[in-house]
Amino acid sequence: MLTVNRLDLADARLLIEGAAEKAREIGVPMCIAITDESGNLIAFERMDGGKITSVTIAQDKSFTASAAKKATHDYNAVNVPGKLAFGIHTEVGGRISSVGGGLPVIVDGEVVGGIGLSSGTPQQDMDCAQAGIDYFESKRG
Amino acid sequence: MLTVNRLDLADARLLIEGAAEKAREIGVPMCIAITDESGNLIAFERMDGGKITSVTIAQDKSFTASAAKKATHDYNAVNVPGKLAFGIHTEVGGRISSVGGGLPVIVDGEVVGGIGLSSGTPQQDMDCAQAGIDYFESKRG
Amino acid sequence: MLTVNRLDLADARLLIEGAAEKAREIGVPMCIAITDESGNLIAFERMDGGKITSVTIAQDKSFTASAAKKATHDYNAVNVPGKLAFGIHTEVGGRISSVGGGLPVIVDGEVVGGIGLSSGTPQQDMDCAQAGIDYFESKRG
Amino acid sequence: MLTVNRLDLADARLLIEGAAEKAREIGVPMCIAITDESGNLIAFERMDGGKITSVTIAQDKSFTASAAKKATHDYNAVNVPGKLAFGIHTEVGGRISSVGGGLPVIVDGEVVGGIGLSSGTPQQDMDCAQAGIDYFESKRG
Repeated sequence: MLTVNRLDLADARLLIEGAAEKAREIGVPMCIAITDESGNLIAFERMDGGKITSVTIAQDKSFTASAAKKATHDYNAVNVPGKLAFGIHTEVGGRISSVGGGLPVIVDGEVVGGIGLSSGTPQQDMDCAQAGIDYFESKRG
Repeated sequence: MLTVNRLDLADARLLIEGAAEKAREIGVPMCIAITDESGNLIAFERMDGGKITSVTIAQDKSFTASAAKKATHDYNAVNVPGKLAFGIHTEVGGRISSVGGGLPVIVDGEVVGGIGLSSGTPQQDMDCAQAGIDYFESKRG
Repeated sequence: MLTVNRLDLADARLLIEGAAEKAREIGVPMCIAITDESGNLIAFERMDGGKITSVTIAQDKSFTASAAKKATHDYNAVNVPGKLAFGIHTEVGGRISSVGGGLPVIVDGEVVGGIGLSSGTPQQDMDCAQAGIDYFESKRG
Repeated sequence: MLTVNRLDLADARLLIEGAAEKAREIGVPMCIAITDESGNLIAFERMDGGKITSVTIAQDKSFTASAAKKATHDYNAVNVPGKLAFGIHTEVGGRISSVGGGLPVIVDGEVVGGIGLSSGTPQQDMDCAQAGIDYFESKRG
């Protein structure tokens, strides 16, 4: 039997809160998705004005980051024609995202979930995702 | 030109809060999804212990209720062999739900969104969805 | 943070071994799928002669049993026109199975995974799934 | 009438065993999928710690290698903008994989199945897939 740690709903809310605060700061309403370590959704919020396409994209970024234990921008770096990982983004029904904005959430060296942002530029999405993690870590104490 | 009224994120949180309160009362951790009048997700929460399959089912119930402007248990009543609506549940890639637990959210006679619950019996899901709407209406004042 | 228990690969092999032994006894080559508590595949074997359609069906039964924490034959009993759960089998992209042959695997009162069988009659599939669980429990000691 | 040769379950287990041995040697827990000459799954194992996204990716690599009779890294080499095969990875619902790690299994000049690995780098996946084939061939004598 394996024992696995995963984010709970209170954790997920902290991650969303930190990411949303950053999104307000930069003036870009975001879709924010939090998944558990197996890639399944725990919580989601679309800020007023967030994009409809981002409803799915944010979830897929979070799914990828948690279930593959890898930031989506790290997949982006290797998802280049001629590299051996090229084409990864169509896998799992196209749910594997190689667009920046998905980060694994790591506690004590273990991936316990993921956060995915979408509606801004990939860099804005990445910054807000990181802000979510920073806030989560500051509150866990 | 059309002007459309839809739930905002603050509304969605009220709907979740009311539904979750009822879920705690009956002791069944739920997945709770809130969609706008176009069927697109605004907010989602999986209470600790909510079922993984319900992550999708709650969203599909809410999608159905808002986008089809009909409670999923009303689809259930007509989704019977021999009735002309029979088979509706396989439409839209199977996202049309005829399982009780999805309700349209109606303000001033207009559907502005939907709420979908899953993890309990259909009746429990329906009761919690209704509790979400009741709470939302009480807070709108 | 939540802590979750799930089957490991050694557990999954025991479940397959017990189910396959029963399948050989009744002379029906089976597809046998073992999933973790989140519904994700751990191990799968198609016995020589197992049906091709059953490759997916066995996985979907196991997915349903583990992720919904319910035997697929229990969904079968409520997936009847006129009952409020009718239509549940098209949910999650049609992966929710209401065909007998999927059982949750429960250890210390907690669902830690699932087993799904397909290729025989639903009753044969159910018997072999149960045999897998019985063998697993006998070996865990 | 055609007569087709394909891997049986005992063959599939040998392929998995050889690949898993290599995976343990390099310290990367893998998802390992074996398909028959028609691309249908015979056996699958997720080593403890294998990635959730790799559950599907390993199967798709094996599917591609066996059903297209081509190593996924060979598709990778031609899946480059400007080449006539570019875009092949979105075909068959995205199941065609151009990520290294899927190899056809060839006996007497005939493709009898495939092996797909995922969870490491593409090169690690390729090495473990080859190790599976080498072990299989050594045991067939």
